[in-house]
Amino acid sequence: MTGLRERRERTLGPYAPLFYDRPLELVGGDGVWLTDVAGGRYLDAYNNVPHVGHAHPRVVEAIARQAATLNLHTRYLNDRVVDYAERLLATFDAPLDRVVFTNSGSESNDLALRIAAQHTSSEGVLVSDFSYHGHTRALAAATTGLRTREGLGPHVRTLRVPDLDGADRGHDEATVLAVALDEARAAIDSLRQEGHGLSALLFDSLFSTEGLNRVPAGYVAGLAALVRGAGGLVVGDEVQSGFGRTGTAFWGYQNHGVVPDLVTMGKPMGNGHPVGGVALSAALLDEFGPRNMYFNTFGGNPVSAAAGLAVLDVLRDEDLVERARATGVVVRRGLERLVAAHERLGPVKGTGLFFGVEILDRPRNDPRARPDPASTRRVVEALRARHVLVSRIGREDSVLKMRPPMPFGPREAELLLDELAEILDARPFGRCPLRSGA
Amino acid sequence: MTGLRERRERTLGPYAPLFYDRPLELVGGDGVWLTDVAGGRYLDAYNNVPHVGHAHPRVVEAIARQAATLNLHTRYLNDRVVDYAERLLATFDAPLDRVVFTNSGSESNDLALRIAAQHTSSEGVLVSDFSYHGHTRALAAATTGLRTREGLGPHVRTLRVPDLDGADRGHDEATVLAVALDEARAAIDSLRQEGHGLSALLFDSLFSTEGLNRVPAGYVAGLAALVRGAGGLVVGDEVQSGFGRTGTAFWGYQNHGVVPDLVTMGKPMGNGHPVGGVALSAALLDEFGPRNMYFNTFGGNPVSAAAGLAVLDVLRDEDLVERARATGVVVRRGLERLVAAHERLGPVKGTGLFFGVEILDRPRNDPRARPDPASTRRVVEALRARHVLVSRIGREDSVLKMRPPMPFGPREAELLLDELAEILDARPFGRCPLRSGA
Repeated sequence: MTGLRERRERTLGPYAPLFYDRPLELVGGDGVWLTDVAGGRYLDAYNNVPHVGHAHPRVVEAIARQAATLNLHTRYLNDRVVDYAERLLATFDAPLDRVVFTNSGSESNDLALRIAAQHTSSEGVLVSDFSYHGHTRALAAATTGLRTREGLGPHVRTLRVPDLDGADRGHDEATVLAVALDEARAAIDSLRQEGHGLSALLFDSLFSTEGLNRVPAGYVAGLAALVRGAGGLVVGDEVQSGFGRTGTAFWGYQNHGVVPDLVTMGKPMGNGHPVGGVALSAALLDEFGPRNMYFNTFGGNPVSAAAGLAVLDVLRDEDLVERARATGVVVRRGLERLVAAHERLGPVKGTGLFFGVEILDRPRNDPRARPDPASTRRVVEALRARHVLVSRIGREDSVLKMRPPMPFGPREAELLLDELAEILDARPFGRCPLRSGA
Repeated sequence: MTGLRERRERTLGPYAPLFYDRPLELVGGDGVWLTDVAGGRYLDAYNNVPHVGHAHPRVVEAIARQAATLNLHTRYLNDRVVDYAERLLATFDAPLDRVVFTNSGSESNDLALRIAAQHTSSEGVLVSDFSYHGHTRALAAATTGLRTREGLGPHVRTLRVPDLDGADRGHDEATVLAVALDEARAAIDSLRQEGHGLSALLFDSLFSTEGLNRVPAGYVAGLAALVRGAGGLVVGDEVQSGFGRTGTAFWGYQNHGVVPDLVTMGKPMGNGHPVGGVALSAALLDEFGPRNMYFNTFGGNPVSAAAGLAVLDVLRDEDLVERARATGVVVRRGLERLVAAHERLGPVKGTGLFFGVEILDRPRNDPRARPDPASTRRVVEALRARHVLVSRIGREDSVLKMRPPMPFGPREAELLLDELAEILDARPFGRCPLRSGA
């Protein structure tokens, strides 16, 4: 245990999660690279919060300049927050034409559930059975993807998100869809029967925590139709999938052909500066606004707005959404080559700059093949030993999670793929589990 | 309506509150001064978020330097957040030796209630009957001081906070105390009888929203003893009263001789940068930590930590807590002179750099005298016309609220007092209500 880690545990406690067997002490970042305390350089193939790259000079300058000018709440007029709101809202589809700024994805999802509960006079919430939307009390009661003591609230029903490249592999897509929508119907009925009614469906359009599930075409649209038919609202959590991450769209919901009633934002929005928001229609805000004095002290302050604006500027000027799409093609092609060569790898999941590959304990065509979190973990540690940072996701923590900052390009993709290939090749992957540093 | 206001309403909606009949468009700030779009200079006697002064160069530099270096979550080691945690925890009394970082006072209070509910396996909450602790769903259910559609949760009981300079004026202090504690006892009994149990008392040690009540000696200590006796936890909300605001102590709770079980922080912590936190004992965190995977993406990032550290540095190096105490004496003396000269002013409330004076509709010795929010509002507008910014608080919005950045000194105090005196003198205050700009 280093002195720093000891000091950290004596102040923040030992529960705040740390990556890796030997945690990494980082002191600097630029673009897609990170520097550790010994001067070692690491390729960042994991972090989505520094969306346009670590310490992007335009974002840094925007923050520094505005902080040196004025940083105040929104009870006075200031053009910066309005400029940002206009630019941000221009990225959404009708009827999403209003935004409430917050400081985190958690604040955003909590507010979205609050608005939905008031709109519907109901409490019932549908979430995936392996998801995470934030740490407030209201969200803890709807958390299925990590440990909370509260457990699920009685007003929450969970849905198994289908995965045509996972549990539903080999099944007929239309059948998988029908079964999944039947499950949603039953969940809504159960909420009604127990008097909760239906308030909202809360979903991440990439199914990130779940493990980047490939859902049947029409799944999200089908869910949305059921939810709206029952009087509920659709809340699209774009904390992970938004701001062009998928490469094919600016917002993840656009890949599903559904416009949510409320869209929540967080992580990448200010490139690390604490910014979040909820986009909604004027009609919904006009209902919530007069009944509640909602005021968020830091929300929409000019420094946060400047950070958010700079992120939008960089995304546009560096063409990062298209770049994510193009690089994503390179990554997918490379990962597919690895899958072809290694029978214990599952199919490639994800799009744009969010990829996953599951590691199995047996050849994928063996019906007894199961997720192999231990091997996945060893690959993550082995990549770290080679100075490439990735992580794990999925129900079993068995999916390699690759989700780099958006400037990650084809050259970095090749680097990641080469290191991964060498690790997978080092021992016959089909027989002998990989060791750390192998 | 200016073009900017129109654009704002078309993006943020018309509900986000704005001060003043004609909202002020601000474009810059330095120290205790603000600059509007026309170049006008305003003395800021209101804003507590820019705690060590608008755009303080040391805070700006700390933010700019760290943002240009690295901004990441806490899943890797970084010394900045540990340095900050150590410095911050050194300001607290035993047994508060752990901190969880968040991004706002709302996140902090929500987390404190979550920890308390788990610790006590109970939901019952005591709050003042005119208070505000944040905007999450859990906090909306305990909000009494502003409009929420939810109304109070069934697990919430409210306490009337006594005020020896207000509703309880002229009554025997010991009796007032006994009555107030009896009310708390009854509230706790009611929570138990209805099966909610007692989870937490949540209070602001300055009773800011209430109107800076002067409570009987021993009131908070008495409440805390009752709450702890019933197995509940004491949550001190220091979002407004902390970081030396009272001049007499670094934390407001220290003025009451009580150490809360959880202390929540927000607004002034990062001088406007979105930072919050919860201080608690290792014992409480050791209970919560293993049962919950609490992770706050932006919480404790190195830029937020750098901002928080710089605020602590400036408070120390510019001796701002002592300065607040000393300036507070000047302000109080001046306000007392005004009260002596104007019989429609109530007694001076507050301490350090948080003051209030109530405006009444009749001479204060008239038993029929009532709060006069309309006159209070006119004084706020008249001060604005003279380029001095204050606001209103209290149950009737009838208390002039003066709560400047901490570098506010004796010279600025005289300026505020002179302008206020001229406004109050302009018409015989006892007979004719003040008009805007009078």
